[in-house]
Amino acid sequence: MATTSEAHALGYNLEVDFVIRYGFGGSDKADAIEQLEKLLRALAGIGLQTEIRQGDESSLLIFVRASSKQLNRAVYRSRVRDWLYGIRNDEPEQGNSIEPETEAERLRVIYNMITLPSLEGGAGITPEHGDWKNVLSIFPLHDVKTNNRWMRDWSQKTFLSEDDLDQIRNKFGESVGFYFSFLQSYFRFLVFPAIFGFSCWFLLGGYSIVYAAGNSLWCIIFVEYWKRQEEDLSCRWETKGVSAVQTTRRQFQPEKEVRDETTGETRGVFPATKRMQRQLLQVPFALVAAIALGAIIATCFAIEIFISELYNGPFKTYLIFIPTILVSALVPTMSVVLNSIATKLNDYENHETNDGYDVALTQKVFVINFITSYLPIFLTAFVYVPFASLIVPYLDVFQLTVRPFVSKEDCATEHRSTQFQIDPARLRNQVIYFTVTAQIVGFAMETIVPYVKQHALRKYKEYNKKRSVERTGKSDSPERKPAVTYDDPAEEAEFLKRVRNELELPEYEVTEDLREMCIQFGYLALFAAIWPLVPVSFLINNWLELRSDFFKICMEFRRPTPLRTDTIGPWLDTLGFLSWLGSITTAALLYMFSGNTQHGPNGEPRDIKGWALLLTIFFAEHLYLIIKYVVRTAMSKIEPPNARKARAERYLVRKRYLESTLHTPIHDSDEKSAEGTGDGLSRSALEDDARETTLHDADPAERFWKRQHGWDESAKIGAGIIQAQPLKAADKKKQ
Amino acid sequence: MATTSEAHALGYNLEVDFVIRYGFGGSDKADAIEQLEKLLRALAGIGLQTEIRQGDESSLLIFVRASSKQLNRAVYRSRVRDWLYGIRNDEPEQGNSIEPETEAERLRVIYNMITLPSLEGGAGITPEHGDWKNVLSIFPLHDVKTNNRWMRDWSQKTFLSEDDLDQIRNKFGESVGFYFSFLQSYFRFLVFPAIFGFSCWFLLGGYSIVYAAGNSLWCIIFVEYWKRQEEDLSCRWETKGVSAVQTTRRQFQPEKEVRDETTGETRGVFPATKRMQRQLLQVPFALVAAIALGAIIATCFAIEIFISELYNGPFKTYLIFIPTILVSALVPTMSVVLNSIATKLNDYENHETNDGYDVALTQKVFVINFITSYLPIFLTAFVYVPFASLIVPYLDVFQLTVRPFVSKEDCATEHRSTQFQIDPARLRNQVIYFTVTAQIVGFAMETIVPYVKQHALRKYKEYNKKRSVERTGKSDSPERKPAVTYDDPAEEAEFLKRVRNELELPEYEVTEDLREMCIQFGYLALFAAIWPLVPVSFLINNWLELRSDFFKICMEFRRPTPLRTDTIGPWLDTLGFLSWLGSITTAALLYMFSGNTQHGPNGEPRDIKGWALLLTIFFAEHLYLIIKYVVRTAMSKIEPPNARKARAERYLVRKRYLESTLHTPIHDSDEKSAEGTGDGLSRSALEDDARETTLHDADPAERFWKRQHGWDESAKIGAGIIQAQPLKAADKKKQ
Repeated sequence: MATTSEAHALGYNLEVDFVIRYGFGGSDKADAIEQLEKLLRALAGIGLQTEIRQGDESSLLIFVRASSKQLNRAVYRSRVRDWLYGIRNDEPEQGNSIEPETEAERLRVIYNMITLPSLEGGAGITPEHGDWKNVLSIFPLHDVKTNNRWMRDWSQKTFLSEDDLDQIRNKFGESVGFYFSFLQSYFRFLVFPAIFGFSCWFLLGGYSIVYAAGNSLWCIIFVEYWKRQEEDLSCRWETKGVSAVQTTRRQFQPEKEVRDETTGETRGVFPATKRMQRQLLQVPFALVAAIALGAIIATCFAIEIFISELYNGPFKTYLIFIPTILVSALVPTMSVVLNSIATKLNDYENHETNDGYDVALTQKVFVINFITSYLPIFLTAFVYVPFASLIVPYLDVFQLTVRPFVSKEDCATEHRSTQFQIDPARLRNQVIYFTVTAQIVGFAMETIVPYVKQHALRKYKEYNKKRSVERTGKSDSPERKPAVTYDDPAEEAEFLKRVRNELELPEYEVTEDLREMCIQFGYLALFAAIWPLVPVSFLINNWLELRSDFFKICMEFRRPTPLRTDTIGPWLDTLGFLSWLGSITTAALLYMFSGNTQHGPNGEPRDIKGWALLLTIFFAEHLYLIIKYVVRTAMSKIEPPNARKARAERYLVRKRYLESTLHTPIHDSDEKSAEGTGDGLSRSALEDDARETTLHDADPAERFWKRQHGWDESAKIGAGIIQAQPLKAADKKKQ
Repeated sequence: MATTSEAHALGYNLEVDFVIRYGFGGSDKADAIEQLEKLLRALAGIGLQTEIRQGDESSLLIFVRASSKQLNRAVYRSRVRDWLYGIRNDEPEQGNSIEPETEAERLRVIYNMITLPSLEGGAGITPEHGDWKNVLSIFPLHDVKTNNRWMRDWSQKTFLSEDDLDQIRNKFGESVGFYFSFLQSYFRFLVFPAIFGFSCWFLLGGYSIVYAAGNSLWCIIFVEYWKRQEEDLSCRWETKGVSAVQTTRRQFQPEKEVRDETTGETRGVFPATKRMQRQLLQVPFALVAAIALGAIIATCFAIEIFISELYNGPFKTYLIFIPTILVSALVPTMSVVLNSIATKLNDYENHETNDGYDVALTQKVFVINFITSYLPIFLTAFVYVPFASLIVPYLDVFQLTVRPFVSKEDCATEHRSTQFQIDPARLRNQVIYFTVTAQIVGFAMETIVPYVKQHALRKYKEYNKKRSVERTGKSDSPERKPAVTYDDPAEEAEFLKRVRNELELPEYEVTEDLREMCIQFGYLALFAAIWPLVPVSFLINNWLELRSDFFKICMEFRRPTPLRTDTIGPWLDTLGFLSWLGSITTAALLYMFSGNTQHGPNGEPRDIKGWALLLTIFFAEHLYLIIKYVVRTAMSKIEPPNARKARAERYLVRKRYLESTLHTPIHDSDEKSAEGTGDGLSRSALEDDARETTLHDADPAERFWKRQHGWDESAKIGAGIIQAQPLKAADKKKQ
């Protein structure tokens, strides 16, 4: 079924494999034409067919299709490379019959043909770089019909099947496939804490030890399960070990050229120690990020408390929105600034490989996200609630700001600050805000708003164009169909319109979606004890997320070029870290608030004993680590099915090969030693004299080894000794 | 130099590769003779030459030598296997010219020839098992001259060179090589804490924060360095990934036979879940071990305190030795019992592979060793010192035992217990005992005592034999040389005497020596803050240890059969664990005692505040973990030299292969598309009509792709669009 629909879809895309957007806006005409010729010649050189159409005012569309012969050769080369790197188990057979197995493989191989350096059999085209700076982008076209069908199908299912995930992988490559598999595993795993959390909330309320323990255990199992699942998937999709094949970053600037003694090649080197020194800048960066974001969040937090709980002057109904507006405006702005600093820092670290770069950037981005996402709740739980009575009086500084306006009610506010009572529900409400409201807002911002914006923009452009055509129409527009403004053949018009629309879409980054999910997991690991319904909210949210992310990829982004991977990468470590941190925060929250199960924190936490709090944390953390160790050990003992299959295949390959070396006939010069017992004795008797004479000439070793001739003689002498020995023992007994 | 000396040494051993000890004591004569014949036939069948001599009263010595042709074939097969498992980088070339590179490889391959199942090309001989229960042992002979030369050389060196370690590996195999490399790295690394510790002891005394921090950092770096070093060594010795090749344990009892769908073979399976259930028994075992050993140690400890500090009755001078005698007698006895329980438990867990079995056993043995080695100091530091004044009064129970003997001085003891003062130097003295005295005693017990015992036993046996020969001599002893009692040819007598001596030596277990070193490392990680001279003692001890261990292997054990490995195995985790635990104990010790830097703990620790103690531990532990993470990350960035070399070699192999696939000529049917611009236009003009007519018949994709014929036409059309476009823009401007 899949293949026929794919064939149909390819037909719909007019068999276009890739579209290259070629810009000629910046450079002068002659140069652009010359480069275009060079580009087309390079593409033809590796056996790709091209067609050119107009893109927009300053760009061309170069449609690329691979001839099946060239493609098969490239697929073969790619598989040989995989085999050499240990990604495939068996050596691929040569021949022209090698077809790409999936659409993703086809696109990946063609993309490699276009971009790999000519030394490795590619055309060496690097978009927006060096000779190819006019090549703005290279992207495949969406398979609209299949996408729509899947969106329709999935909206009626609770869980995606393994087959669905395979389909995503076949269409968008392993990188996207891994994200959806992760999302699906996470969603499926959420069912347990959702039910358990709901029961605990119903029966025990918040801050229940039972729920917290169950939740922590769930976090451990989920993270370890996913590690195992990753291994299984990478075996299933034949990408295991693919991250070992590192590609050099184009922007990498080597400090010096070094000639490798073994390979005899010179290659650019950047000393690791120097990079580490540069990486030390992460520490001040993290501090700056923490202080900058922390100051904003803490200030707004203080203002909010002041206004909502101390201030009693005029405009209170309006003033109450000030901190929210401030946070909404300042935190994202600061995040953007910090993110750009992080990117600059990361560029400065000059990583050699793309993977190294991504890991380092992920770490920095995670620091920023950690602060913006979790700091407000940390402030409430570990600063506001225990120390409010100490801190709140100092909030009177804000009084000075408002005094000019509220001089008459001065004493009312002053009075309130002395008999201040903290808001008991604040912590829970904040958690609800972050795990329900913010998720919904995020969904809207991420999926609905861009879609609406896109359509509005398209409509606006069309309207503008139509108007300008109407104004200048008399001179150069033979056909006057309202939607078509380029010289497209009528039958291609619809197709080209779609291509031009896709052209304007942004590129999809799977890491963004992974980040979102990891941050979500963090709320669950860190703060679910406060409000046990957190997983219920996430369960509902993620059902939607799975579909909306697919919708997003299909409608709001260019189709991603398939990338191979065998892991969700650095985010996995993040999950482990959050889960660990969760064991600490949960223990602390439970100790501080578990006395008030009925109503949540009542604003008067029991007198907190430092040693008891720390002892609770100490035990909880180490219990967590022990259980994690046990779970990990136990999980590692159970081999995932696809890994077992891959192992069995490897075993077969080896066995076949070893057997081929074993069964070649043996031509041994001293086969005599392996002979039967036949006439050994008589012959040896004949040879005895000869041996005696030579014994004195040869070296001691030769004399030693020539005493017994053949195994049959050894056996006789051995038998003699054995039979002699018990007699001796019997002799002894007789005496 | 090495090869000539090796050749010489082989000559000295009369070119004997292995000695098989064949026992005929138990079974009846005929059976033993039959089995012997079978054994010799099997050995001859795989091309091994044999000679038989008498061993002792109930055993034969079967000397085995491999013919070079058969050996070369076996070496080739072994290397092909390595290559298939990814241990070697390049496929070995076939042919008879493949010689074993080292003596260790030679012995390993021959041992495999003897023991591997016949399906894999061996003789399938399994000592003391099944058909071969008369085969008591298979072992190579010591190379006495080389051993003696090395012992002489090394006694004059401070550090062993890389070359020395390579020699050990070439002689005894990678497993022993790894142990000596570890010992050497550890010894070399100890220089820093020894100097630093001595300085701190001199300048700051005990319980110095500076020293403790330096020591913890050193522990982290050492463990991470060794991990890196392991990788480097495994690349240097070409054993990387060898632990992936798992051998099935002979004692493994499968629960059921399962047919593997992929390989089509049936193999024995034991469900992992069932094994895990059995492994749960480790928990009660650890508890029992802790309670049993803990009770002994705590009781003896209490008795000691009672006698030394409370008791004042008669015989005090003698009674003071009671607890020491009790501990020395009971703890080793209990350890033996627990070790045998651990072995039984481990057997019951029914591990499938030898590696799995070893790892599981190591864990259990470590629990026992942890308790016996560290519990006494833990008791002193965390029970005796802080709680002595609470506990000691209860020690009066011992009073009841001694009362009958000391009725007259009753009141004196009673009086003392109320004004009890703890011994301030006890903790330090205990650490000194464990890190100096116990090390020396251990050295003597391990090296000197067995050597003396062995020689005494040999002398005693000789004396006995001589006497019995004298008594029974008249009947059957033609030669009356005093030392030779067997019918040996005179020229072999000396050699056979040596072989018979080696026969009686026990088998060497490298894991025992590793255990000793790990436990020693534990004292350093856990308690060095108490007495900063600990590393100085260990530095001296380990200089000796390195030599004495080599002496031990050469003189007190049979030569070990070379085993390959790429790690020191589970002990590495133990090192990491001890280092981590050290961060906790050190922080606790420092907090409790660092007030009294001059004289050590003065027996009156400052009032311990629970929260401050716990906070110190919490910060120290997490600081430790962060630094460990940073060090590990930094270390992983620096590639060890041999790993880089191995990677370069792999790269070369791949490159060669890929190039061979790349440069085969391309036979493309539509080469036209790659042609020059030659007569493209004229031809295309001619073809235009034909194209127009077919355009309507073909499907849309074909029509799309036939609009532009060849890349040159595309280039022309592209150029046209580019040249047209700016005109339009200019047009707009004109209006």
